[in-house]
Amino acid sequence: MEVGFLGLGIMGKAMATNLLRHGYRVTVWNRTTAKCQDLVALGATVGETPAAIVARCRYTIAMLSDPSAALSVVFDKDGVLEQIGDGKGYIDMSTVDAATSSKISEAVKLKGGAFVEAPVSGSKKPAEDGQLVILAAGDKKLYDEMVPAFDVLGKKSFFLGEIGNGAKMKLVVNMIMGSMMNSLSEGLCLADKSGLSPQTLLDVLDLGAIANPMFKLKGPAMLQGSYSPAFPLKHQQKDMRLALALGDENAVSMPVSAAANEAFKKARSLGLGDLDFSAVYEVVKGAGGSGQA
Amino acid sequence: MEVGFLGLGIMGKAMATNLLRHGYRVTVWNRTTAKCQDLVALGATVGETPAAIVARCRYTIAMLSDPSAALSVVFDKDGVLEQIGDGKGYIDMSTVDAATSSKISEAVKLKGGAFVEAPVSGSKKPAEDGQLVILAAGDKKLYDEMVPAFDVLGKKSFFLGEIGNGAKMKLVVNMIMGSMMNSLSEGLCLADKSGLSPQTLLDVLDLGAIANPMFKLKGPAMLQGSYSPAFPLKHQQKDMRLALALGDENAVSMPVSAAANEAFKKARSLGLGDLDFSAVYEVVKGAGGSGQA
Amino acid sequence: MEVGFLGLGIMGKAMATNLLRHGYRVTVWNRTTAKCQDLVALGATVGETPAAIVARCRYTIAMLSDPSAALSVVFDKDGVLEQIGDGKGYIDMSTVDAATSSKISEAVKLKGGAFVEAPVSGSKKPAEDGQLVILAAGDKKLYDEMVPAFDVLGKKSFFLGEIGNGAKMKLVVNMIMGSMMNSLSEGLCLADKSGLSPQTLLDVLDLGAIANPMFKLKGPAMLQGSYSPAFPLKHQQKDMRLALALGDENAVSMPVSAAANEAFKKARSLGLGDLDFSAVYEVVKGAGGSGQA
Amino acid sequence: MEVGFLGLGIMGKAMATNLLRHGYRVTVWNRTTAKCQDLVALGATVGETPAAIVARCRYTIAMLSDPSAALSVVFDKDGVLEQIGDGKGYIDMSTVDAATSSKISEAVKLKGGAFVEAPVSGSKKPAEDGQLVILAAGDKKLYDEMVPAFDVLGKKSFFLGEIGNGAKMKLVVNMIMGSMMNSLSEGLCLADKSGLSPQTLLDVLDLGAIANPMFKLKGPAMLQGSYSPAFPLKHQQKDMRLALALGDENAVSMPVSAAANEAFKKARSLGLGDLDFSAVYEVVKGAGGSGQA
Repeated sequence: MEVGFLGLGIMGKAMATNLLRHGYRVTVWNRTTAKCQDLVALGATVGETPAAIVARCRYTIAMLSDPSAALSVVFDKDGVLEQIGDGKGYIDMSTVDAATSSKISEAVKLKGGAFVEAPVSGSKKPAEDGQLVILAAGDKKLYDEMVPAFDVLGKKSFFLGEIGNGAKMKLVVNMIMGSMMNSLSEGLCLADKSGLSPQTLLDVLDLGAIANPMFKLKGPAMLQGSYSPAFPLKHQQKDMRLALALGDENAVSMPVSAAANEAFKKARSLGLGDLDFSAVYEVVKGAGGSGQA
Repeated sequence: MEVGFLGLGIMGKAMATNLLRHGYRVTVWNRTTAKCQDLVALGATVGETPAAIVARCRYTIAMLSDPSAALSVVFDKDGVLEQIGDGKGYIDMSTVDAATSSKISEAVKLKGGAFVEAPVSGSKKPAEDGQLVILAAGDKKLYDEMVPAFDVLGKKSFFLGEIGNGAKMKLVVNMIMGSMMNSLSEGLCLADKSGLSPQTLLDVLDLGAIANPMFKLKGPAMLQGSYSPAFPLKHQQKDMRLALALGDENAVSMPVSAAANEAFKKARSLGLGDLDFSAVYEVVKGAGGSGQA
Repeated sequence: MEVGFLGLGIMGKAMATNLLRHGYRVTVWNRTTAKCQDLVALGATVGETPAAIVARCRYTIAMLSDPSAALSVVFDKDGVLEQIGDGKGYIDMSTVDAATSSKISEAVKLKGGAFVEAPVSGSKKPAEDGQLVILAAGDKKLYDEMVPAFDVLGKKSFFLGEIGNGAKMKLVVNMIMGSMMNSLSEGLCLADKSGLSPQTLLDVLDLGAIANPMFKLKGPAMLQGSYSPAFPLKHQQKDMRLALALGDENAVSMPVSAAANEAFKKARSLGLGDLDFSAVYEVVKGAGGSGQA
Repeated sequence: MEVGFLGLGIMGKAMATNLLRHGYRVTVWNRTTAKCQDLVALGATVGETPAAIVARCRYTIAMLSDPSAALSVVFDKDGVLEQIGDGKGYIDMSTVDAATSSKISEAVKLKGGAFVEAPVSGSKKPAEDGQLVILAAGDKKLYDEMVPAFDVLGKKSFFLGEIGNGAKMKLVVNMIMGSMMNSLSEGLCLADKSGLSPQTLLDVLDLGAIANPMFKLKGPAMLQGSYSPAFPLKHQQKDMRLALALGDENAVSMPVSAAANEAFKKARSLGLGDLDFSAVYEVVKGAGGSGQA
């Protein structure tokens, strides 16, 4: 099977590599061409432009850094739109908002092409290991054709229905994650102030019904005031804001998430927005600003 | 090693059985003597009264149903106090409040005995499998002597310092658990009202950084409105109230836990107190009363 | 002094009447011309179109029902823009969002005219009695020239600085009002469930440091489950959402307002959005849907 | 009419003075006898002990500083209990908890006497002006007999039913007050960060439907960071805790009050407990500790 691949950042490079290793013929494009070399060594072909990739490949996957990059490779000169059409599929795995996704979807369909949005859950390591979780939505037929490739890239893919549902699912997951981070922070603080060891609390939690990778990974770093930003607090708060807005639209009352959101906002007001979202622990402790990135 | 064992309910029987299987000589007592028979078949000796057990054994473990039973075997006629004294240790593994534990501790120490409180995390299955988590506090020397027995009964034991800390640690864990249950409920409801499948949300959660046994176990039942009470909501709410009171005492502000507590109170006001604590999902959905035990 | 007046709804008619009674020469326009007759009887002149009014008068006041009407009289054919220009002032007293106000402001200024936004606090009765509170912003010189007219229309006018600040001030006031309505509802419910008379609570409140017209006016109706919509709950919730969004923009953490907002959202989800905003009391009581408009 | 009066602190002295001025014959007692002189100059008689006062007067009013003083004058040697009995009434107007009040009530009734608890709303100035609000409960017949005296002492008295209801009513009122103080703080902070003048917000609030004496009195001081303790924050938070506990007992969910309580707790954790309760504004602003008493 032949696929095009647009975007060779940390994530994209790992994903394209996996496809090559599983026998796919891959034609790659990156804004900075130098980044293509490692993949060429693994057998990839290089395309001149997004349009050239689409012209050559039946399926083109994109993994770009943000909404503006995602729009640019589609709508700019030499972009995807110039060559997309009947019988061709475009799969955008970047993390973008629903509006961006809809805009791309409509433009691709207008040209007669098929479109799937497929944002992923998981970062560098899962990308390298082919252990991403893929939240796909859009054209069901195209999704079905892509399942073998998704099986290479991730441990599981979901088809969620209409365009926008991938982004929504990520918001819901991140909202739960944000509330849980607040719960953990409050528990650690209560333990500490009540004469219990917060580290022991982490140990106890890790043996019980609510043990989870996030508590295990982030907890010890939080106790050291170390907040190296795997997922910046300002992005977590933005996702909670958007999830609450989605709830507002649908008249869903979510008081726990709302309380958690206010704590993240307090953290932002104290200048912690660029630290990891676990820095909300500083707000619960009542300190502020003392953490390190 | 020889130990006495008071209380052969579901938990106590499983625990005493494990001790016998690992070569301990165990002398058992239960208010209803009939329950001793199965253990006798495994090699246990039967004692006439709590006092008789303590007279015979250097270490006596208790696993009783509630604070009043825990007080009764110690302070009543033929109780532990009549024979406890220098060189003897009493280990209460029942779940009781800090005040009850302190009262027993003081009385035992006044007689010259040593005391450890050791409430456990985990229910029937972990008790049978020797996979409990043991939250011990009190006399450190006695704790150290009991470690081999604790290793038989649980996968891990913690020594938490002064009497009362075992109960406090359980409150902190249950508080985090209660907030997480609210977070999950809000997420499921948001997914549902936003056109996403709540079951798919559970599947996605289970593959990510916040995957945990509670979500996996309770989630599908919640979607079916099934709330068979593994841990009754009114007890969960009581623990959150007590955890918040502990926070009040120590001036710890915990807005997310407070919001979760109010949701559990709303559930109580709707008559859901005897269902499983996951029935708070009904409050988030805005229904009320429609769940089944 | 001569002024033009656009819009003779309930509010506008009362305001134009007050100007006439205080000796102003007023030229009126209304989409439905019939509504002009009562004012003609009081001495008003009728203008054919918004443009005709602006052509004739140095100052033109508008009081329109919503943002789309406010935009229409300015931008449509025969609208304000056709005649506004150097030396002329346009004062929009309608309640509109900041974006609408900015759009009108920019267009008027581009033509050389001066613009003031001046939303009011107060409804029919205060309008009739000249007791409105006027929240003005925009062109300071025009504001100063309008003060005598504002003194006729209201008991107090404020100049709040740049365009948009009038709308913002209303959001802040309404946010506080919404939280207070929740506080009252919680207090009434707590009194009732604790064996105290909610009516007596209202009487006690009315004699103390937090006595206020809203509690006095709404309280007794709430106890009767009567929620005739003076200010619809869905509009109150929209204002709280916008106030929280303003807080988000400026990193202001507001947990009490956020909790109040979630209660209003719950009310919306129970179908109470068209009742008065005091119907949030039904949510606190745990009922839902039983109130009457 | 003759009454006894126990306790001549700031409040008691003002109240006894008012009774004398309205023609009551008053026999006074105070722990420190010197404080009786000013009242003797106005015509009061002095009693040797609480018991002596009760022996002489059919009705005895007490206004003491705290629960321990209230218990002491009743239960200690030469206390009220020694002379109370059939045909005599005891009216305690001190602010005490429900348990203290119940204890006194039971002891007085056991001796055949009648008891009314009658805590007041209002401090020094209203006491001097006879403008207190009296929250009475207990013996209805005795209450009815005291109405003329209550009319001298307060602008309004309420009979609230069984013993304890006076204290409960105060809790409910203070809970609403505490939430309102948070609402105001959030509004002031939002105004400030959004480019509006907080002082103008106070001016606008004071002209509208939620204008109230507390906002008017406290608002300007808050803007200056001046928190001279008319009602200490730690007492406000204690009352909110007790009100929430009352709600817990009766299964009343109160998320807005709970959020407000957490803000007061945060203020306590920052060392603001001895300042006025309006110092919660410092928490909302995100500062902490910078206010002055």
